[in-house]
Amino acid sequence: MRFTINREEFLKGLTTSSRAINSKNPIAALTNLKIELNENGLFITGSNRDLTIRTLIPYFLDDKEIIRNYQIGSVLVNLKIVDFCREVKTEEVVLEVNDETIATIASSNGNNEMTLQCIKVDEYYDVDLEPDSLEITLTKNEFSNIVNQTAFAASLKEQRLILTALNLEANEGKLTVTATDSARMARKETLVPDNISFVANIPAKMMVEVDHLLEGQEYITISIGDKKALFSFDKIVVATTLVAGDYPNTKNIVPKVTNHHLMVKASEVLSAIRLANLVTERENVVDFSMSPENVQISAKSSQTGSGVNKIGAFQYEGSPLRISFNSEFVSQAIKALGSEDILFEFIGEMKPFVIKNPNDDSIIQIVTPVRAYY
Amino acid sequence: MRFTINREEFLKGLTTSSRAINSKNPIAALTNLKIELNENGLFITGSNRDLTIRTLIPYFLDDKEIIRNYQIGSVLVNLKIVDFCREVKTEEVVLEVNDETIATIASSNGNNEMTLQCIKVDEYYDVDLEPDSLEITLTKNEFSNIVNQTAFAASLKEQRLILTALNLEANEGKLTVTATDSARMARKETLVPDNISFVANIPAKMMVEVDHLLEGQEYITISIGDKKALFSFDKIVVATTLVAGDYPNTKNIVPKVTNHHLMVKASEVLSAIRLANLVTERENVVDFSMSPENVQISAKSSQTGSGVNKIGAFQYEGSPLRISFNSEFVSQAIKALGSEDILFEFIGEMKPFVIKNPNDDSIIQIVTPVRAYY
Repeated sequence: MRFTINREEFLKGLTTSSRAINSKNPIAALTNLKIELNENGLFITGSNRDLTIRTLIPYFLDDKEIIRNYQIGSVLVNLKIVDFCREVKTEEVVLEVNDETIATIASSNGNNEMTLQCIKVDEYYDVDLEPDSLEITLTKNEFSNIVNQTAFAASLKEQRLILTALNLEANEGKLTVTATDSARMARKETLVPDNISFVANIPAKMMVEVDHLLEGQEYITISIGDKKALFSFDKIVVATTLVAGDYPNTKNIVPKVTNHHLMVKASEVLSAIRLANLVTERENVVDFSMSPENVQISAKSSQTGSGVNKIGAFQYEGSPLRISFNSEFVSQAIKALGSEDILFEFIGEMKPFVIKNPNDDSIIQIVTPVRAYY
Repeated sequence: MRFTINREEFLKGLTTSSRAINSKNPIAALTNLKIELNENGLFITGSNRDLTIRTLIPYFLDDKEIIRNYQIGSVLVNLKIVDFCREVKTEEVVLEVNDETIATIASSNGNNEMTLQCIKVDEYYDVDLEPDSLEITLTKNEFSNIVNQTAFAASLKEQRLILTALNLEANEGKLTVTATDSARMARKETLVPDNISFVANIPAKMMVEVDHLLEGQEYITISIGDKKALFSFDKIVVATTLVAGDYPNTKNIVPKVTNHHLMVKASEVLSAIRLANLVTERENVVDFSMSPENVQISAKSSQTGSGVNKIGAFQYEGSPLRISFNSEFVSQAIKALGSEDILFEFIGEMKPFVIKNPNDDSIIQIVTPVRAYY
């Protein structure tokens, strides 16, 4: 294999695909990028088995020749090639593979040259990147909102693997995405075409990674199979394994009737929480006490001291209520709503409560209180 | 003690003095800020014994009242007071100490209040902040140049404590500052008044810290005593202990006669070094080979591969030479010179070599080569 290629386009593809690589992967072949030139162009693949990213660089972009003076073939190459292409400054670089195990990359002026020992290409673990028939297309904004408003609420603990996933359920014209770590829940609804119906559990961190890659795109197509989801945009395909097993039933977590309603400003509550956290006894647990006359967030620690922070602007309906919660959960939920107006809805001291944007019904956040020791 | 104080001025003083505090200090009193209000204003002190920073906030700044409604006194207070003052948004805050062990800080609108348990002020370790008679004043730029051009070459290893210091020697109208970790050396000369003469070894990292604090200042006064150095600027005094012992004699390290001279561009050498480093066998060691026809930086690793990087623009005088060096040392030395034109002067393969800015004789960098295995 050999080719001369536009350095910027090559670097873009290398950088994107290398995001899937774990350089400490015990399977040596997977610490490398697979580079394959065929009649369609140059395919660059990076994978850690759970996540695979493949980018395609065509021979021509618009009328500009991107790849020239080539001979088709494939090679597995060390990630150092990415740093090389980032560091040299020539418009093109030249890659040449002598037998299957030695690749030389050079700047087109010949000043800089690096020879890398390579692993044979047949040792690569190839992931199935064929799309399944079930496809759904979202705008970049729809996809980003789903991820930003739910993924933070998924569990980070691998003990209950299913909770590290986002649960995607499409039917009757609605895609409902749920995340829960069992102490809180985030749920987002997005309108989709009527005829689409599926359920899939996609690792939350993969969804976050795909969202990063989406920067600058307009649309994303998601294809759902039995064991994998594919995300396609631009000339990039991302594959992720699904999390096996049934997602817990979260349908009944959202309370139907609530009897304490508090409307506040996001910035003021977040600031009061940060101040209360300076003196929390148990990590992040603060007390929220409300009445029609006074709303305050306070905390106390036998070691450090105590803090009381009154909320200046609020509307409260209901009898006085005092509730303790993990303030980190509440802060994340408020930030995810992306609204300065925030509505809290409570049932009682020990019942899960709702945090909402009063102007957007598509997203709901639920947090379970913690037992207080006052 | 009590006072109402302009929040921004208070926060600035708290932030500056808290930079000296190590929150894990085993002496509990030193994890706190000492706050003392007397007839001169409010003194805020932070210390870890080796480094002490004291700021003064006066009652008035120009005609603006900064501290009002006060009663003098002193207290040791937890660093959480800094976060409190950063987070609240009122123009003033109110500090009140009830007995010596409980302090309450509040926003001036009363919405936010934090009560902190305090340590008694007589448990504080007080550092002598009286200036010694030997004083020297430098501009901010002179001081920053000294620190930025030398401190990186001081040792980070505590085994030979004296090498973690910068050696300052003033006499005959010159302040000479030297740093060496025994494998390289940086030396900077600055003109000072004729009548000043002293030798002091000041910890390099303290000099770096003082340089950070100097941001936005014009002058700094350094006072040298037997066991301490004091740095004064604005309303801030910084004290640092000196490193005891004799600094090694570095007078003869700078070679008098050199017979290989290479002039190059800093950016090109730095780039070639980064590229060669992608395939170094021993960490950071690269080969530099020079002749009147060709200058290149190369590296080789039995595991990864090899790289050759030719320098495009150079002037070389002397017989061909090949030398191996720790490229991190050379890169740091080049960057410290702050010049795009860089002059290398060599004696031979295993002799320390010089890196200079051809237009600035006040600064010199010396690097010892490493033995090559080619």
